[in-house]
Order: sequence, then structure tokens, then C-alpha cells
Amino acid sequence: MTILIAGGSGFIGSNLVKFIAKNSDEIVVVDNLSRGSVNYLPNFPDKKIHFYNFDLSKSEECFKAFSIANSISPVSEVWHLAANSDIPAGVENIDVDYKDTFMTTLELLRAMKLFQVKQIFFASSSAIYGDLGNAELHENIGPLLPISNYGAMKLASEALISAAAESYLDRAAIFRFPNVVGVPATHGVIYDFVNRLKVNPNRLEVLGNGLQQKAYLHVTDLVSAMLMIRDKKDYPKVDVTNIGPVDKGVTVNWIAKQVVSRVSAGAEIVFGTRDRGWVGDVPKFNYSTQKLQSYGWLPLMGSDSAIVRAVDEIATQLGF
Amino acid sequence: MTILIAGGSGFIGSNLVKFIAKNSDEIVVVDNLSRGSVNYLPNFPDKKIHFYNFDLSKSEECFKAFSIANSISPVSEVWHLAANSDIPAGVENIDVDYKDTFMTTLELLRAMKLFQVKQIFFASSSAIYGDLGNAELHENIGPLLPISNYGAMKLASEALISAAAESYLDRAAIFRFPNVVGVPATHGVIYDFVNRLKVNPNRLEVLGNGLQQKAYLHVTDLVSAMLMIRDKKDYPKVDVTNIGPVDKGVTVNWIAKQVVSRVSAGAEIVFGTRDRGWVGDVPKFNYSTQKLQSYGWLPLMGSDSAIVRAVDEIATQLGF
Repeated sequence: MTILIAGGSGFIGSNLVKFIAKNSDEIVVVDNLSRGSVNYLPNFPDKKIHFYNFDLSKSEECFKAFSIANSISPVSEVWHLAANSDIPAGVENIDVDYKDTFMTTLELLRAMKLFQVKQIFFASSSAIYGDLGNAELHENIGPLLPISNYGAMKLASEALISAAAESYLDRAAIFRFPNVVGVPATHGVIYDFVNRLKVNPNRLEVLGNGLQQKAYLHVTDLVSAMLMIRDKKDYPKVDVTNIGPVDKGVTVNWIAKQVVSRVSAGAEIVFGTRDRGWVGDVPKFNYSTQKLQSYGWLPLMGSDSAIVRAVDEIATQLGF
Repeated sequence: MTILIAGGSGFIGSNLVKFIAKNSDEIVVVDNLSRGSVNYLPNFPDKKIHFYNFDLSKSEECFKAFSIANSISPVSEVWHLAANSDIPAGVENIDVDYKDTFMTTLELLRAMKLFQVKQIFFASSSAIYGDLGNAELHENIGPLLPISNYGAMKLASEALISAAAESYLDRAAIFRFPNVVGVPATHGVIYDFVNRLKVNPNRLEVLGNGLQQKAYLHVTDLVSAMLMIRDKKDYPKVDVTNIGPVDKGVTVNWIAKQVVSRVSAGAEIVFGTRDRGWVGDVPKFNYSTQKLQSYGWLPLMGSDSAIVRAVDEIATQLGF
């Protein structure tokens, strides 16, 4: 069978491909290369990883991608990791998340209906919760009032997938990602800090007051959690799971210190005054992963170790 | 100031216009007349109700509507009641709710940002809850997994509005409607039953087993609840409220009997076997209106009286 991975040459997608490639399915990676790169994909001598550059938010290109994938062997499942990942850009311009996140979901579902592909695994986000203050963000909480178009279009995608499951899918597993770190980094707080220190090794300017506290998961743990859920024997037709570490996370302040110590020891760290780094940034974040833990799964790294490892990996990736 | 009412010549919109027209604001009704009619609008001698036929899901038409409305006097608030209302049509074809519900919200928000209109009142739906079984559907419950594209695109609209509030709105009030009955009816279970009896006065065929139980609110009560919330002195920036009666609702079976007794006494009622009338239909429905009641508001009619009154009104509207 063929597994189609939308956004499969991005940061998380390429890590997923590495894991999935260990078994014998054909893998079709479809990506518009807006942030991803073919170089991120592993080279397998048996050539079971196929790459196609299509913009899945466009109906015709999505149809072409499914036609090609189906001609290799019937597509049995879709992993949907294609999305805008630049939250501030989406706040500025509504068309960014509308096109790259929402329309990609809509067109993928249209194609799945047509090609009778019955299973979807979707990379949603903790951003769908918005800012619920100190409330514990478990899967049964509401109202869901995202504060960025990024979060809004992830929630809209969940909703479309849920409706599709009622009418023509056999299974929809929705993963709500926390902040994910690791390589190949294409964006995110560590990537940003390392790049700033490249420009000015003596001073690191941080957006916001640095007190924003969030949970971080290493990408290898994220992929292991997703595959564990996929391989469960019992599952509801539509299932939503928060994925993240067990701890309460670390502050931006603490991350800045780790980056400075690895990349440019002694650099001054300068903070802003606002409690949010940008519009759409959630200052505090009490993310519940109780449901995930109830499956007996635990990450290998907590937020702190994930950050320490990712800082080293990203520093290396960027030439430090 | 000008109040812009999107979808203002439809079933609920035209009732809202009647109430709002009692005060002194200018009212600009924008509607694509897909189900609405200019005849539904009240005639006021002072001509403060202006009607424009535009498709607000299209960027240019939405821009034109706001330009015109603003030229009368600055738009102070938008009521967004424009949406597809044919749930089965949207299940069949994803483009229906995508265009008529989702894109209308997106383009309204784009225009509000541009024209600096700071307040929106949005007609969302209890359909965003999906099928949570017997759980009490209060505003703080999740996960929100709608089972129709209608519900999915209402939820997506809520999400977009919530994100917009974080960045450029002063106030967003989201009303989650129950099933609403009254005139001028353009669709819905009573309208459907009366029309079936017009075709065949001896036999009423009901989709599903008739045991689906839902809460119904009369449109006059709905409008009164919305205006009560709008006029509250204290409100959060983004607020979600279930609107509905206090009771647990009535069955489709019971409604069918009321319609038969008013329109074609003695007609045989024939039921299907499925617990849902159609894909996207929620069989049971425990809708909490505790939050609304906490404001001291109560409907004048419960589900049963609302149905009895609406059956009579709709029968009259359709010539019985």
C-alpha cells in the first residue's frame, strides 16, 4: 500500500518519513517546499520514498498527487502535516493560514473522498485552545477560541476532518502538537535565537518579557507518540489526542540562556515588556497529556532535555 | 451609526431587522437572496432600512457592501447571519458550506479590519458540538467534533472571529443557535413536513425513526435573547453563548403529529428506521442554556409551544 504524507519534507514530516520508511510500505511525500527541502528526506536504496512537488491547497495539483500516488499502489492512509508554520505572518494576513492550512485540508479531504482513502492522521496544534488562562488544557475543555489564524485554521481543519469521518472516512486521528523542537529546524524559537546570535554575537533580543512558559517535545518523541497511536488496536472513529511531555514546560528566558551558553557564551540577553512575544502567542500554557499517558506512553525527554538536545542539534545545523 | 446585517433578509435575519429597526440606527441589509427575500423586510416610512444584493463570500462584493454602508454613516457593528442552511446539501458537496458559510465569515472579517468595524455578532450553531451522546452541551465542553460540514464551517467561523478579536476587534459575541422555528420559513423540519403534505395529504414520510429529540426556540425569542446579550453592560471581548429554551426538547415524531393535525388531520405518518434523519443529523441533544439563564433571561415559549405556534404560522404562510 501507499502512505501519502502531505508536508512530508518539512521539519516534522521528514522525521516521520524516517520512521515510517522502516516498514515496507511505499511512501509518497507531497510538499510545496515552502519551508521543507528534498534534502531532509532519507535516501533509501530500494527507492520506496517518492517525492512530488505539488501545492495541495490547489484542487488540480492535489488530484494529480493522488492520481500518481494511487498508480504506485492504492493509498491506504494520509498523513497531513502540510500547514503554514509562521504564526505572526498569518496574524498579519488572513490568506496565509487560510490557503496553506485550511485549503490544504479541504482539498486533501476532497481527494480522499474521490479516491476512497479511508484513514487520515492530522497534525493539529495546541494553538486551537487559545488563551484559557491557567485552566488545564485537556481534550474535553471548551470553548475553543484560538487567538491566531494559525490556531483558527487548525481548528477548522479538525472540524472538516470530523465531518468527513461521519460521512466517508473509517478513521481520523487528530494529534494536537505542543511546541516541537529538533532538526532539521526551519523555524521556531531556538532557530530564531541562534540566527540572531549569528548576526550579533554579543546581544540576544527576546520578544516579550521571557516569562512565557510552554511545554516542548523533541520531534523524535512526537513521531513515536503518533505511530504508537496509529498502531493501537482499539480506537474511536474520530480521536483527538494532546501530544506533549509530562512536565509544565520551561520559560523563554531559560531557553535563551541555553542558546547563549551553547552558541555565544557571555552574550547579553535583553527582554521586552509584554507578556506575549507577538499577537497570537499564548503566554502560559498548562497542557494536559493525561490521555496520552493513559496509553502507557511516556516521552524519552522532558521539556528541558528536549530543549538542551535541540539547541545543540540546531546550533550544529546552523554551523556552530 | 450604521448596523450592517449580513444575511438580513433570510428567516432569522428579517426577524432581527424588525427588532433592530425600532431604534434609530441606519440598517444596511446585505444578502445574496439564496433563500431570503426582500419581501421579508419590514417597510419603514423613514427609509432607514437599506437593502443590497451582494454575495459576501466574494472579496470585491463584500468590499463594495462595506463601502456603500460606510458612506451612509460609519458602520458600528456587523451581524453575521449569512450561511448555507441546507445541511444535507453541504454533506454531499463540501463547497456549499465552504463558500456560503466559511468564506462569508472570512471576507466579512477582512472588510471589518479594513473599515475598522470593531464589533461582530455571529450566528453560530449547536451543530458545532457534533454528537457527544448524552453529555450536557454547555459552552465549556469539548472536543468539538461536528458531524456535518455545516457544523464544521460554523466552528471554523467562530475560530476565525476569535482570532480576529485578539488582533483587531473590540467585541465578538458568538451565539450558538438551537433549532429555530417561525416565519418567514425557508427550510426546516416543519416547512418540509407541510410541503410534503401539500404533495400527498394522506401520508407523511419522515426521514429517520422519528425519535430524534431536539430543543426548538421560536425566532422571536431568539432575537430577544441576542439583543439582550448585545445590550449587556459587562461582557468579555469574545463571548460564546448557547441560546435555547430551558426544556429538553421534543421528538420529530411529536412534531409530525402537530403538523398533521393542523394541516391534514388523519394523514398516516410513516417513519424510517435509522436514528438519524440524514448524515449530519444529531439524534439526541442535551443542550445547556444555563449560561443564558444566568443572565436572567427566559424564553416566552418552550420547545412545545414554539413548535405549536410555528406550525400554525408556517401552515398559514404556505396557504393552509
